[in-house]
This record gives sequence, structure tokens and C-alpha cells, in this order.
Amino acid sequence: MGTYLVTGGAGFIGSNLCPRLLEAGHKVVCYDNFSTGQRRYVDHIIHNANFKLIDGDLLDRESLVSAMDGVDIVWHLAANADVRFGLEHPRKDLEQNTIATHNLLEAMRVSGVKQVIFSSTGSVYGESQVIPTPEDAPFPVQTSLYAASKLACEGMISAYCEGYGFKGAVFRFVSILGEGYTHGHVFDFVKQLRSDPENLYALGDGYQKKSYLYVQDCIDAMLLISDKMPKKFDVYNLGVDSYCTVRDSIGWICDRLGLKPKLKFSGGKRGWVGDSPYIFLDTGKIRSLNWIPELSIKKAVEKTVDFLTDNAWVFETREG
Amino acid sequence: MGTYLVTGGAGFIGSNLCPRLLEAGHKVVCYDNFSTGQRRYVDHIIHNANFKLIDGDLLDRESLVSAMDGVDIVWHLAANADVRFGLEHPRKDLEQNTIATHNLLEAMRVSGVKQVIFSSTGSVYGESQVIPTPEDAPFPVQTSLYAASKLACEGMISAYCEGYGFKGAVFRFVSILGEGYTHGHVFDFVKQLRSDPENLYALGDGYQKKSYLYVQDCIDAMLLISDKMPKKFDVYNLGVDSYCTVRDSIGWICDRLGLKPKLKFSGGKRGWVGDSPYIFLDTGKIRSLNWIPELSIKKAVEKTVDFLTDNAWVFETREG
Repeated sequence: MGTYLVTGGAGFIGSNLCPRLLEAGHKVVCYDNFSTGQRRYVDHIIHNANFKLIDGDLLDRESLVSAMDGVDIVWHLAANADVRFGLEHPRKDLEQNTIATHNLLEAMRVSGVKQVIFSSTGSVYGESQVIPTPEDAPFPVQTSLYAASKLACEGMISAYCEGYGFKGAVFRFVSILGEGYTHGHVFDFVKQLRSDPENLYALGDGYQKKSYLYVQDCIDAMLLISDKMPKKFDVYNLGVDSYCTVRDSIGWICDRLGLKPKLKFSGGKRGWVGDSPYIFLDTGKIRSLNWIPELSIKKAVEKTVDFLTDNAWVFETREG
Repeated sequence: MGTYLVTGGAGFIGSNLCPRLLEAGHKVVCYDNFSTGQRRYVDHIIHNANFKLIDGDLLDRESLVSAMDGVDIVWHLAANADVRFGLEHPRKDLEQNTIATHNLLEAMRVSGVKQVIFSSTGSVYGESQVIPTPEDAPFPVQTSLYAASKLACEGMISAYCEGYGFKGAVFRFVSILGEGYTHGHVFDFVKQLRSDPENLYALGDGYQKKSYLYVQDCIDAMLLISDKMPKKFDVYNLGVDSYCTVRDSIGWICDRLGLKPKLKFSGGKRGWVGDSPYIFLDTGKIRSLNWIPELSIKKAVEKTVDFLTDNAWVFETREG
């Protein structure tokens, strides 16, 4: 049993992870600044004796160092995950991802904490010519400030592994769906349909291919690796071995909600500048370790729609 | 004719570039904080009417914005280039490379300056399994904080090209030699031999393979690309198509100085943690544009030894 610090522990993935770690008998220190994390997501575990909640920011270096007390492994999930509007606030990814991650690594180093698990993104592959994209795909070109900042974090983590004897595991995700999800197209579509069940407006031509992974499958994979950390540093793609189009997804959402809206598409291959028209990852590496995602994309979309339907309060707290 | 802002314009490569740009009829704004740059390096052009010197820091965002006035292209050469001692001050690469580069890109964006040339490093390839290493080598793992910070800069530049319509050219160098050089093994060896011509102590086993490029050859390649900038973003390796061992280099240095010291090696394959045992770049891409380096590694080492002999004052101003 260990003590796990989870940055962004009250966020989408973090708030699904914390209960899993507690169930496994670990102690959990949840570190979150509640910029996008939700107190309601951790309400059900707040009184667990093995759970500690720290309302802290990764830019607060002193708070970070004091949070490291007794920690064995850091799960670094906190991030500015607002890919789409990165161009409107170009310093945000630098500060909340790159600088924040450096602060975290430094707090770990001065505290003697040397194991880190990091949630990166499949968008670091840019517009890869190799589909499905393996971890050792050709040196990519970054197409978004978000992915550029995640790449910067990956680079720092690997340099800390080389230079300071850290052990690091980096996970490059496709988009994640499931309970707690409040960001991305399923959220946007359900939100639209709540205010107007007759019409649905979508960016791009609707034929953008996307691959999604259910949040519990994602956590299964990360737990598998965290139980036996890499000797130094390793990278794993996470995703399902299929994809859907935005039109497929719209169909599943509408069926689940029992709606038949008129569809309008903005046209074009990309939803927005920097939107990758096709992220589909080769996950052979993690699959060779006997990880298999249990939910299909369709099931993951449906679970997400159900979550949003049952938790309409999230539409009040998030811009989407 | 254009106006070129050269960050690090009083540094090693920058101080060789500025006169070349002036000779070609351009206006030059040299932006340097003189942390490693030398006023003596730009003394001979300081009174040129087309040359403007700004004593400014890349962390000073206001100064950077005012420096952009009338600028057409930015040559971003300023950096913390202290690869070897990165582990002793782990925030330096983040601040002086990653954050500094972000500040520069932001100053460009708000000023409407959209063309940038960036000096990256071949060490972003980490310990590549592909030798010689092409630009599209497999997605690398970073082994130094320096390379990680350069990778972060590359990522931000490409994201600015994608998101804000910038044009960017990134050059991944092997180590550069020539007039103005004050950093690395030739400097260290000449410095040692000045204080003790009888003994020479070297890190590693001396069989580390290294590839070097003469500074004027490096500038030739960058000028070739800057005359016709990429449509969006492109990356070019720069180096010669041969390599030497540290022992070769020691032989050339000693011959040039007329010395026969006793050699002592610390042993091991790497000079220091994060030192890449073998950086050898595939430069086919830039060669296909009719660039050929004129000087061999041996000639470049000899020119560097001559520079250091003629400018012994640099040993007083630099730690090496």
C-alpha cells in the first residue's frame, strides 16, 4: 500500500481514479485548484480517513512541496485541457501545463519523491502520417499550443528520469469519455440539445474520425503500469482499436436521448484550427501487457450521455 | 532588404551572423542580455548605421515588444546553452529557453512579426537508434533538461505557425565550432593546456563520437532557408557528413598548439549524465537545397584553436 498524490484529483479522470486507489487500500492526497475540478466529484470520499484534499495550485511551489510529505507516487493529471480555445489565451498552456509540471517535478525532487505518472495526449503526434500511430512514430510537428505544452512536459519528465533517477510513465490518450466528463463534443452536443432538441449544429463536415476511450478503461491501463513502474521512463498509447465519425457519435447521442434533431455542419475537414482531423493510436504496446479496454466507443458515448442527463448541474458550472 | 532581430546577437553564433546580415544590406537589431554574449564580439559593427544594439532580456516582455518595431524576421539564437550543468540549476532551461521563447513568440504575435528562425539542437533526438539521424527520426526520449527545453521551444514555434500564421524554420545543430566559441570541449582542452601544457584530462573514454560544424557553414545554411522561408514550418538538421572521436579532436588541438601532453581519461561511454554518446545527423534535407559545408571537422577545430589563441581574454570572462 502506498501514498498517492493525484494532481487534478477532483477533475474528470482524477475523480474517477481517487476512489479506485482508495478501494485498493492506498492513501490518496488529492491536489486540485478547482479551476475545472468539482468538489461534488469528491464529495463521496471526502470523509474517507485515507483521503486528504488539498486546495492548491501547481503554480504555488511552497504548497506543492508541503503536499509531497510521505508521498510514494505522483499521478499528474492536472492540466489546462482546453485544446480548442488555446489560441485565445496563448500563455495558459505554458503556465498551467509546462511551468506547472516543472514546479511539480522540482517539488518531487527536493522532497525525494521519484515516481511520476503523467497524462499526456495523442495530439502530440500532430497530424501523423502513420495511422494507427505507434509510440515511436516519426518526430512530430505540433499543431496546437496544448499538445506543444504536453510535449514539453513529457520532455522534462524524461530528462528528470535520466538526470535525477526518477521513474516516469507517460500515457498518450485519445479523448476520454465517461462519468465526470465535461469537455468536448459529447458535452457540447448534449448541452445544445437540452436547449433546442430540434436542431444540432456541429463543427467540420461531421466526417472527422475520432477515437475515444472510457475513463475506467483508461484508469485500468494506468494502474497496470503504476503497479510495476518502468525502470526509467516509458510511454504508452491508450485508446480503443476502432474509431467513429462525429456523425456516428451524434447518432448514438440522439438515439440515447430519443431525439431526432436537424443536423447542420459548418463544413471543412477540421472543427477548428489545430483540431486534428484523425487521432487513432496504435495501442499494441500496452495491449501486449494484457490490457484490453472493455467498453466500445458507442458504449462510452452512451455512458457519458447518461452521466450528463443524471447530472445536469454540470451544465451550470462549466462553459463546455 | 529587411530588418532582422537577432536574439543572442552578441553570442557565439549571433555575433558571426550580424556582420553577415549587415554585409548583405539588411538592418540588424541585436537583442542580448550579455549573460554569455560579449560586447567585444560586436565592437566592430557597433557604429554601423544599420546596426542597433539593445541590452535586453527575453524575460522582459515589454522590452521585447518595443524591440519588434519594424522587424521583418526574428533570428532566435539566444539560449541557455549550458547542457552539461543543467542538473545543477534545473529551472534555468525552463526560464531562459522555454519561457523566454514563449515571451518572444508573444511579442512577435502582438507586433505582427510572423517569421522566425530558431536554433535548436541535435540533442533533441536523445539517444537515437537511427544513425545518421534524419529530421523524421522516431519520436525521441529526452535525456537532458537542455534538449527538453529546446524541444518545448520547437513545439511552441510550430503551434504558433499552425495557429497564428507564422512561418518558422528550426535548425537542429550538431555542436558548432569557430570564431567566438567559448563553450565545450575544445574550449576546455585549450584552457587546460594553457595552465598545464604537460597534462590533459578528458571526460569519458575518449572514443565518444562527435560531429561538429563550422559556424560560417552553419550560418550559410540558415541564410539559405531565411531567403525563402518555409510556407508554414520546417525543420533542418545541420552538420557535416563525418564524425570524429574526442581523441581525434585532442590530437588536432595538440598538433595546432605544438604540444604533446599526457592524456588522462575519466573512463565510461558518456562525458556526463545526459551527454549523448553519439550525435550524428542526416543532413540530406538541407543538402538537397545545395548547401554543402566548406570546412571539415579538423579545419573547424583548428580555426577554433587559432581563435582561442588570438583571443585569450575569453578565458578570463567565461567559466567554460
